[in-house]
Amino acid sequence: MAQQERAIRTRQKIVMAAAELFDEVGYEAATISEVLKKCGVTKGALYFHFSSKEELAQEVLAGQVAALPPVPRRELHLQQFTDEALVLAHLLHLGDPMVRGSVRLTVDQGSPHDGLDRRVPMQGWIDHNVDVLTRAKDAGELLPHVDIPSAATLFAGSFTGVQVLSKIMTNHADLVERVADLMRTLLSAIAVPGVLLRLDFTSGRAERAYGEAVRLRETPAAIPDASPATA
Amino acid sequence: MAQQERAIRTRQKIVMAAAELFDEVGYEAATISEVLKKCGVTKGALYFHFSSKEELAQEVLAGQVAALPPVPRRELHLQQFTDEALVLAHLLHLGDPMVRGSVRLTVDQGSPHDGLDRRVPMQGWIDHNVDVLTRAKDAGELLPHVDIPSAATLFAGSFTGVQVLSKIMTNHADLVERVADLMRTLLSAIAVPGVLLRLDFTSGRAERAYGEAVRLRETPAAIPDASPATA
Repeated sequence: MAQQERAIRTRQKIVMAAAELFDEVGYEAATISEVLKKCGVTKGALYFHFSSKEELAQEVLAGQVAALPPVPRRELHLQQFTDEALVLAHLLHLGDPMVRGSVRLTVDQGSPHDGLDRRVPMQGWIDHNVDVLTRAKDAGELLPHVDIPSAATLFAGSFTGVQVLSKIMTNHADLVERVADLMRTLLSAIAVPGVLLRLDFTSGRAERAYGEAVRLRETPAAIPDASPATA
Repeated sequence: MAQQERAIRTRQKIVMAAAELFDEVGYEAATISEVLKKCGVTKGALYFHFSSKEELAQEVLAGQVAALPPVPRRELHLQQFTDEALVLAHLLHLGDPMVRGSVRLTVDQGSPHDGLDRRVPMQGWIDHNVDVLTRAKDAGELLPHVDIPSAATLFAGSFTGVQVLSKIMTNHADLVERVADLMRTLLSAIAVPGVLLRLDFTSGRAERAYGEAVRLRETPAAIPDASPATA
């Protein structure tokens, strides 16, 4: 058991170091030996877990959606959706290596021969968005005309681009503000007015929601659903 | 004069070949000798115009906004804005090398040491959007609360991401449809209802508007303002 735990921790260390390296230099320029230097793991241990750089990158890509700590359940599904976007923006702004590395792997076009399947994280976000928006629709939070798959794709795509633009212009310094603006604009096109009025898009929510999400991940019972301070 | 024209044409050939190569392999992997092979220009001629790969890439980046052929003036500024986005989506879908190469140079994160200033095209789009949206505001097409700089940045960012997502999922096959959806959603949050009702977001506009824009670029007097067939 202790041995298995050690193996899991080693694997996590390797993936984290790889994500950090992918963020710094991109997929092409990254090497296994640089990953080894970063995580201080032996070559044998790394190859026990991963047979190639490609496999390592695919694991980083696959972990993108799960790297977002779980935002506590809010009374309004669209508030939870907004808070998730703000927490992701805050993580990118903080420079979280797992998220940044995975996002760079996704967005950099790479070579058609690199074998990386960049659809994995994108499909993950779309599926996640479909899930949240479906719950919002069932709760009567969305205007009747809203097409869930299109809206889910639109949120995933536009978030990606707002992130790219903020990275280029301000190295993510204004990302939280830009994402708050994106959510406010998109949701005002799809939410019913009574819900829209109750949504909080202030960028100050990002840090607070992030703190809650991190505590919730550490001790899942610590934060009640629909916490009155933030819902 | 004939000599000057030849020089301009050679320069264009080099830039086009470079853009094509940047689209295919990215900035890092691209080499001057591959550019030479593509355009059939001598090394001396290339170095007469450009002193380095970086200078060539910066020229491709700088030409991004101008690569969009001018959409004829429409009665509604927001229709013109929509048509521009659709034409750009159509160009990317067609695989226009200048636009694709320039967009890849912008979006690929690259190395902090590559010296490329990716803000140039992004700032170009933001400035262009500020210009169109200001005219729309002056004509009473926008809701009073709209903040022009924020909206201009939001359109630039979200278009970028919708393009990245469409490239990953469908190699741009669904880009025109996704951009039509983006414009419909964003504009329904900022346009006055009376204008919104008159806007046409059907994706069939893209090809028609593209044809008009190309003809307009070739013979600027050919298409009257606010052409009744499409305004």
